[in-house]
Amino acid sequence: MSINLSAITAFLDKTLSVDSIPDASRALNGLQLENEGAVSKIAVAVDGSEKTIHAALDLGADLLILHHGIFWQDMQPVTGISYRKLKAAMDGNLAIYSAHIPLDVHPVYGNNALLAKTCGIRPAGEGLDYHGVSMGVCGEFAGTCRELAERLESALGAPVQTFWAQSEEAPAGNVFICSGGAGNELVQAARLGCRTYVTGEGSHWNIPMADELGINLVFGGHYFTETFGVKALGQLLKDVYGLDYAFIDMPPSAYSH
Amino acid sequence: MSINLSAITAFLDKTLSVDSIPDASRALNGLQLENEGAVSKIAVAVDGSEKTIHAALDLGADLLILHHGIFWQDMQPVTGISYRKLKAAMDGNLAIYSAHIPLDVHPVYGNNALLAKTCGIRPAGEGLDYHGVSMGVCGEFAGTCRELAERLESALGAPVQTFWAQSEEAPAGNVFICSGGAGNELVQAARLGCRTYVTGEGSHWNIPMADELGINLVFGGHYFTETFGVKALGQLLKDVYGLDYAFIDMPPSAYSH
Amino acid sequence: MSINLSAITAFLDKTLSVDSIPDASRALNGLQLENEGAVSKIAVAVDGSEKTIHAALDLGADLLILHHGIFWQDMQPVTGISYRKLKAAMDGNLAIYSAHIPLDVHPVYGNNALLAKTCGIRPAGEGLDYHGVSMGVCGEFAGTCRELAERLESALGAPVQTFWAQSEEAPAGNVFICSGGAGNELVQAARLGCRTYVTGEGSHWNIPMADELGINLVFGGHYFTETFGVKALGQLLKDVYGLDYAFIDMPPSAYSH
Amino acid sequence: MSINLSAITAFLDKTLSVDSIPDASRALNGLQLENEGAVSKIAVAVDGSEKTIHAALDLGADLLILHHGIFWQDMQPVTGISYRKLKAAMDGNLAIYSAHIPLDVHPVYGNNALLAKTCGIRPAGEGLDYHGVSMGVCGEFAGTCRELAERLESALGAPVQTFWAQSEEAPAGNVFICSGGAGNELVQAARLGCRTYVTGEGSHWNIPMADELGINLVFGGHYFTETFGVKALGQLLKDVYGLDYAFIDMPPSAYSH
Amino acid sequence: MSINLSAITAFLDKTLSVDSIPDASRALNGLQLENEGAVSKIAVAVDGSEKTIHAALDLGADLLILHHGIFWQDMQPVTGISYRKLKAAMDGNLAIYSAHIPLDVHPVYGNNALLAKTCGIRPAGEGLDYHGVSMGVCGEFAGTCRELAERLESALGAPVQTFWAQSEEAPAGNVFICSGGAGNELVQAARLGCRTYVTGEGSHWNIPMADELGINLVFGGHYFTETFGVKALGQLLKDVYGLDYAFIDMPPSAYSH
Amino acid sequence: MSINLSAITAFLDKTLSVDSIPDASRALNGLQLENEGAVSKIAVAVDGSEKTIHAALDLGADLLILHHGIFWQDMQPVTGISYRKLKAAMDGNLAIYSAHIPLDVHPVYGNNALLAKTCGIRPAGEGLDYHGVSMGVCGEFAGTCRELAERLESALGAPVQTFWAQSEEAPAGNVFICSGGAGNELVQAARLGCRTYVTGEGSHWNIPMADELGINLVFGGHYFTETFGVKALGQLLKDVYGLDYAFIDMPPSAYSH
Repeated sequence: MSINLSAITAFLDKTLSVDSIPDASRALNGLQLENEGAVSKIAVAVDGSEKTIHAALDLGADLLILHHGIFWQDMQPVTGISYRKLKAAMDGNLAIYSAHIPLDVHPVYGNNALLAKTCGIRPAGEGLDYHGVSMGVCGEFAGTCRELAERLESALGAPVQTFWAQSEEAPAGNVFICSGGAGNELVQAARLGCRTYVTGEGSHWNIPMADELGINLVFGGHYFTETFGVKALGQLLKDVYGLDYAFIDMPPSAYSH
Repeated sequence: MSINLSAITAFLDKTLSVDSIPDASRALNGLQLENEGAVSKIAVAVDGSEKTIHAALDLGADLLILHHGIFWQDMQPVTGISYRKLKAAMDGNLAIYSAHIPLDVHPVYGNNALLAKTCGIRPAGEGLDYHGVSMGVCGEFAGTCRELAERLESALGAPVQTFWAQSEEAPAGNVFICSGGAGNELVQAARLGCRTYVTGEGSHWNIPMADELGINLVFGGHYFTETFGVKALGQLLKDVYGLDYAFIDMPPSAYSH
Repeated sequence: MSINLSAITAFLDKTLSVDSIPDASRALNGLQLENEGAVSKIAVAVDGSEKTIHAALDLGADLLILHHGIFWQDMQPVTGISYRKLKAAMDGNLAIYSAHIPLDVHPVYGNNALLAKTCGIRPAGEGLDYHGVSMGVCGEFAGTCRELAERLESALGAPVQTFWAQSEEAPAGNVFICSGGAGNELVQAARLGCRTYVTGEGSHWNIPMADELGINLVFGGHYFTETFGVKALGQLLKDVYGLDYAFIDMPPSAYSH
Repeated sequence: MSINLSAITAFLDKTLSVDSIPDASRALNGLQLENEGAVSKIAVAVDGSEKTIHAALDLGADLLILHHGIFWQDMQPVTGISYRKLKAAMDGNLAIYSAHIPLDVHPVYGNNALLAKTCGIRPAGEGLDYHGVSMGVCGEFAGTCRELAERLESALGAPVQTFWAQSEEAPAGNVFICSGGAGNELVQAARLGCRTYVTGEGSHWNIPMADELGINLVFGGHYFTETFGVKALGQLLKDVYGLDYAFIDMPPSAYSH
Repeated sequence: MSINLSAITAFLDKTLSVDSIPDASRALNGLQLENEGAVSKIAVAVDGSEKTIHAALDLGADLLILHHGIFWQDMQPVTGISYRKLKAAMDGNLAIYSAHIPLDVHPVYGNNALLAKTCGIRPAGEGLDYHGVSMGVCGEFAGTCRELAERLESALGAPVQTFWAQSEEAPAGNVFICSGGAGNELVQAARLGCRTYVTGEGSHWNIPMADELGINLVFGGHYFTETFGVKALGQLLKDVYGLDYAFIDMPPSAYSH
Repeated sequence: MSINLSAITAFLDKTLSVDSIPDASRALNGLQLENEGAVSKIAVAVDGSEKTIHAALDLGADLLILHHGIFWQDMQPVTGISYRKLKAAMDGNLAIYSAHIPLDVHPVYGNNALLAKTCGIRPAGEGLDYHGVSMGVCGEFAGTCRELAERLESALGAPVQTFWAQSEEAPAGNVFICSGGAGNELVQAARLGCRTYVTGEGSHWNIPMADELGINLVFGGHYFTETFGVKALGQLLKDVYGLDYAFIDMPPSAYSH
């Protein structure tokens, strides 16, 4: 059984509002690489690395859906790494589709919405303004900081790094979740009234910044906070088109030998 | 015993070439805050946080030398955090001097030169080009990747995060050291011919990037790679002016309660 | 008797629409410097100069309201003049609040509206467009050019410099008032149909420009056209909070010894 | 007797280094308007106003040399004022040549050099940096502030506005002269070590700025500080080509009726 | 019989929405050169060249209406070519009015609308987006490619250059017409669904581009596609004001001797 | 027999100074697409069109050298045309190398130098300044305009379009040759003193521009002026490496069916 690539692409573009949601140019949301036109097996993953492409090919996939696409590191001439990746994908008839900000902010399939839901946080407040789009999810967590950390570690499947403003037994309060590398955004989130800020990773100076602002800061890992969206898209395409999908888990540790 | 603040400032500006080395505007290298004019006790630290300022005051310092100054988080109106920090420093007669890139790249007192030296790496190759200034230190490490990691952990006093291209028993080869948050610079360093790239911290996508480039990547911690320079300046001022100095150690963990 | 600084700040921000009215970055409208939190005596003045700060401290003020704030000359490191001014204000527990364009354009407390009113000019026409905000006041003056000059000198308390297109006995006609240093704006004002343009100061070439456009030009003095707004704010805070205020008169001549 | 316009233009361009000295685009240094090719009578003036053009025509001039040319107010369509000015000049066969910064900074014929010379100030120090060109003249005045003011009034033929840092009986010291509207440059001049700053005109806030910097400030009038250069060019052309010239004196007061 | 220039100018500005339609700065739409105020004879032409101005003067015109005005080649000093053109026009009392994009896009008098109409193409689809204005006309041509070419040659009075995607006997289909030098816009037009793209001229690489996109490309000549609008304005002014007009035909070949 | 692709690439990069000669980003000079590493047959062509790629594959080439590379029309996602072109080239193991400005300006293998040589014009004067690189060739042609046109048509193998300032029997004089689409550069070339300007193509307004400047203008066809360089590179590689090469001739007419 197979489905037209163009039908899937059109469905995803529309579901994720790919044409209207702003993003960095390197994200290049939408179809990034065609194949010969049909899709029978889908792989989903966070990063468009060479390892991920080979894993998708090993799975027999003909469509790979990514959060960080294959232009992330600014491919220009099709030489070296770019050549190896495009050549492998093309020879294996693997199409590649990517969705970055559109997949962070989607209210149902987005990384933020899904991480919040998994932790029992119901979206209540305003998000950050990203060129007119609301980014991040804010809501009350009914427990202590320590309990939030446990809940996050269970949701992410990985340890978190925590910086508590008072003590781990204080209530976590209003929690703002912004997946990926959004450390600098903690200032805006603090202005919106959160007591705890959760993101994937940040810069070193976000740590004294949070301390001075008097808010809790939690780093959950860039990768681990962004597996939710692509898995949800895989499941969605399975539901809609009946196509099988597999999640390729390629955390940082997978890149060390 | 005390020394004129203006004499010390002029000496540091000249030693570090503060006027000619390019930097981000928020770095604002040089004297950032005056005091009443005399210096008898010096504190040095990495970050200009509120906690660091209070620690310097507790030590009785009247000059605080920083790597990331007090304008790092872009102070504008003197309200809230800015007010608290400036008020505390001014009331305590604490002058503040900051040196960022000039202190990363200095061949004798710079973070890169000193970290390389501590690891037994002798600078040999070219540095990265930072607006015409050579940044980072490159040299051969005569040992395996595992041995380099051990040497770094001992030098930094903190665990490192490693991504080995082949195996930890392979030779580390040409090692490029670039302190702080210079993950994206690994591409340039790879072009300059290094086999192992060491920096403080980076973005998640630096990890698959290193893998695709076939080079080893080591994150040593932004803070831990940048304690060398300010300590060396403290010692230098002690040698030149006979003034006492203390290093204020305020690693990330110090900001969690 | 004292009032919370934050209450006064919030009241002024709202009254003057400080958050939504555009301005140059150096204006930094709103609270520029905190104090320990309470206000019992207010000083108002046009310029945030060192002399003005000392005059406010001599009056025992704990809040100084300015038209040109203390960042006007682009403070960056807190050294030299910046250090002296901030140190004096902080040691004297003097908060500083500034409002520039918001205080020029306010329909009730604005410099333009009040100068027009004092001269018997009722706002009738359109203002200049300043990034979407209407700036300046235009209305008929029922008298000759000479009579307008007399009326202005009495309102400003200072001599004016006049350039009459025809004769001082011609009717002043439609008068456009734009406080401060808005000489170049006379071209726009001429397009809006005024016969006489009044501003504080301009460049030399505004003079032949007015002549070629066939309109009257009056320079009333930058300082003298901008005392109205801060005095009105002082009176407003007295009415609302019952706090005493004093106007610090520091015209150009006060800076010469 | 007449001389080719192109010969005069080439001579002035070379003498004043019009091609290599930087300037604002509206200055448009060099020949701004051709005539039929011959020059027999020259007029020189500061501003390219309509009144000046008519005065030049009344004098029978066929070349008008200006400091502020006819594009100063950014002519675009040849309508209204622009039409009237170009039409009058063209109908009267009047060529127009303009030199702005090149005529401020010239060591022999420049406004700054000549004003300094007239006041008995011998250039000694460094000038301000204007895109790589040295602007302004700095030298010792052997007298008091009051004596300098008298000397300036006599040289300029107009009253000056003075702001003395200490007293008019203090020595004027190192005097920096920068003709025209260079008020904001006083900060740079102060850094170069002058005790007294003389310019044509400035903004209101230059006055407290000078006070805080502890330097004397003198405003000599934009127009009056810039008559020297064009007169010197007239005399130069008389000496070289034997052509008669007249200076058209059109100070601000000439524009009021 | 004569009409006020200002009345005609105001009428054209309004008819063509000159104030609100965006354009390149060199287009300078509207009145570009005044005359003494009255218009009795109108000339219209495509380009504001020296030859065209002399032709208009030979016809006794006192208003010349252009598509590419006299600032097209960025006049700055009024010397050389600029002097000759302005001098000739002014001496001959010839006013010049220009309309570029406003005359390409006008639904009745525009080049695109009129060329489409002449070819029997009824506007049906969307235009290209030019800073918020719809540019170009799209509609079905009921004939073959060869028939379209014949129709265009007859409308333009000049041979066209054709690049057929399939064959000249295939249907021309949806035709997009964009007058002037709009070769690069074929990509956008292809996205809007046209099968044939007609413009005046383009770059060499538009030719393989059209081939790869599978659309027909026709170059009709920049000049020849833009004679319609100015002729229509001439006729309009004749209808409204009863003034005579003449079209000055100055195709490329007229510039060779 | 085959040669390493990397050897050829390094040789061309060095010969053409690809790293130091400035160009538009879309030119992307150097290797644009890898193959599996060996080259045994070379094709050279002007444009990187789909037709050219297929022609190269039909010839059995494994290296295609272009003047306008495959990123000329700004490929981004590898879909549609980009996909088809990359897929065809990759499947056929065809590497692609491109050189734009470096191949226009090269003194031996450059389009300008070779076209001048073919016409018997010896480079004598200065070139245009292109970001610090000298572009175009200027030299005396010892014949009439008509003779130059004949010489050019024979060299280019295509008719030229001519605009003579005086007559075709006038001497051609100093001829400036600038291959490709350099119509606007005629103003600069005229300033450098040429009497005749030859380029591939231009905009319509270059024609009256040349007339007003009084210089001859010749359009030789963008394509036809740029076949010289790639052929010379093919011959050079044959001489150096003994590899066979073929020139793929794909003029504009080849794109019409």
